[in-house]
Amino acid sequence: MAFNELNWVDFLKNKVKKSNNVLVGIGDDCALVKLENRNVLLKSDLFIEDIHFKLQDTSYKTIGMRAVARVLSDIAACGGMPKFLGISIGISRFVSEKNLKEILKGAIYLSKKYNFRLIGGDTACTDKIFLDVWAIGSCDKFIKRSTANDGDYIFVTGKLGERKFNESFTPRLNEAKYLASNFKISSMIDISDGFALDLARLLKESRKGALIHKNKIPAVHGESDFYRGEDYELIFTVDKNERKMDLLKSKFYFLGTVESRKFGYKIEDNNKLSKVNITGYTHF
Amino acid sequence: MAFNELNWVDFLKNKVKKSNNVLVGIGDDCALVKLENRNVLLKSDLFIEDIHFKLQDTSYKTIGMRAVARVLSDIAACGGMPKFLGISIGISRFVSEKNLKEILKGAIYLSKKYNFRLIGGDTACTDKIFLDVWAIGSCDKFIKRSTANDGDYIFVTGKLGERKFNESFTPRLNEAKYLASNFKISSMIDISDGFALDLARLLKESRKGALIHKNKIPAVHGESDFYRGEDYELIFTVDKNERKMDLLKSKFYFLGTVESRKFGYKIEDNNKLSKVNITGYTHF
Repeated sequence: MAFNELNWVDFLKNKVKKSNNVLVGIGDDCALVKLENRNVLLKSDLFIEDIHFKLQDTSYKTIGMRAVARVLSDIAACGGMPKFLGISIGISRFVSEKNLKEILKGAIYLSKKYNFRLIGGDTACTDKIFLDVWAIGSCDKFIKRSTANDGDYIFVTGKLGERKFNESFTPRLNEAKYLASNFKISSMIDISDGFALDLARLLKESRKGALIHKNKIPAVHGESDFYRGEDYELIFTVDKNERKMDLLKSKFYFLGTVESRKFGYKIEDNNKLSKVNITGYTHF
Repeated sequence: MAFNELNWVDFLKNKVKKSNNVLVGIGDDCALVKLENRNVLLKSDLFIEDIHFKLQDTSYKTIGMRAVARVLSDIAACGGMPKFLGISIGISRFVSEKNLKEILKGAIYLSKKYNFRLIGGDTACTDKIFLDVWAIGSCDKFIKRSTANDGDYIFVTGKLGERKFNESFTPRLNEAKYLASNFKISSMIDISDGFALDLARLLKESRKGALIHKNKIPAVHGESDFYRGEDYELIFTVDKNERKMDLLKSKFYFLGTVESRKFGYKIEDNNKLSKVNITGYTHF
């Protein structure tokens, strides 16, 4: 039996215990560690040909951008900002020097836009292209996935399905900083595998359920956007006692509430409740 | 034309400029950055099936150990100590859960021995196994490759060819700390691709030559060990005015001196000088 990602994460969780210098370990968007008495965010993410992207569907520059943007999105989901970033590249012999430079240009573009430093990485010749992007960031206040409470309001930072990845893609770093600095944000996660699944992850970590109102889902193409990945918007929950809820509702999309675990994960459509069905995700 | 590692490093060097928070950029064993006013070591290293190891020659636990030990050796070569380490794994569908756990056990063994924390990493299903190990470390005084001076003494920490990788393999972290704390070490590098080649790298970065005495090379199997990789000993140079040179000579292996670039990279055998020949390395 081969390991899937969930097994691997669970196995690592058991092996990699929290300690006084590992404040947030495995299982959140980033790890949070204490280094010389400072809090530091750590994250790595693989981006692999024929798993995460297909060569015929994308430009080389976009490969570099997407690989990096995925990590930036995770850092945003913790309320952090990136500082240093390394890229290890496995590069097939069929990729020209020009195209390899294009990949790097995608990374450099984002490093300028978000003011972090590329500090290198390793390279090797492989059959298929892969990038392993690892990043170090800072954050004033780490926002976990696991701290949503009953009655909290659930928001998303943007319309679902609107931004399939393109060159103007923007990880929600600035929005996350704004949220973390100005509101009682109780939990946050980024959408990498679809709103429905990533909210399920947040709920699982928080040991909560949720009620989502179908008519409030800001989906561009209808219900399918609820399940589709790579939006890289942020899902966040807000303490029900937040006084500036109206301001949040004017800037972001409110679409439901956190409920008890017992209630489960449900969607309301014309006053009819049904379970949210997530293929391959059987927690609820 | 495909990129080789040297091209890639040169390309990155040009793109990744030093700045006030990147103290040592691309081209040394590790990068050194300033994070919240503290110096931090960063390093990543790929370890790939059929490039760096063959499945039939090694145990799964040893795969994990070797992948991690390579990074620890680079941290040692800068005079640092590891603090946090992440591993991204590409794992083929033919690897069982048991064997994947063995790989991780190799990493955990070293994390206990050297007191650093594993803080996770990403995973994906790939055709061949690869590990990308990235590490964060600390160092009081960063020892570069590029700062050897004319007349400095050249040492190596152990016999060449003695420690082909096995379970008792020890990265020279403690030795490096001892050297950095007690002696005028002018430059250092670890032996990953053979003494001859790695010394050439140090000399290239320092813009120097060297004279090596063949009868002083501490080689277990003769001259071939001079060229063979994966010793993971450290090559270091010591300021010619170091007063405790005799102590160093009693603990480590002295084998030559740093010379001018014009002199070149030469080996002396019975008073006869010849050029050191390094396949695929044409700097001198």
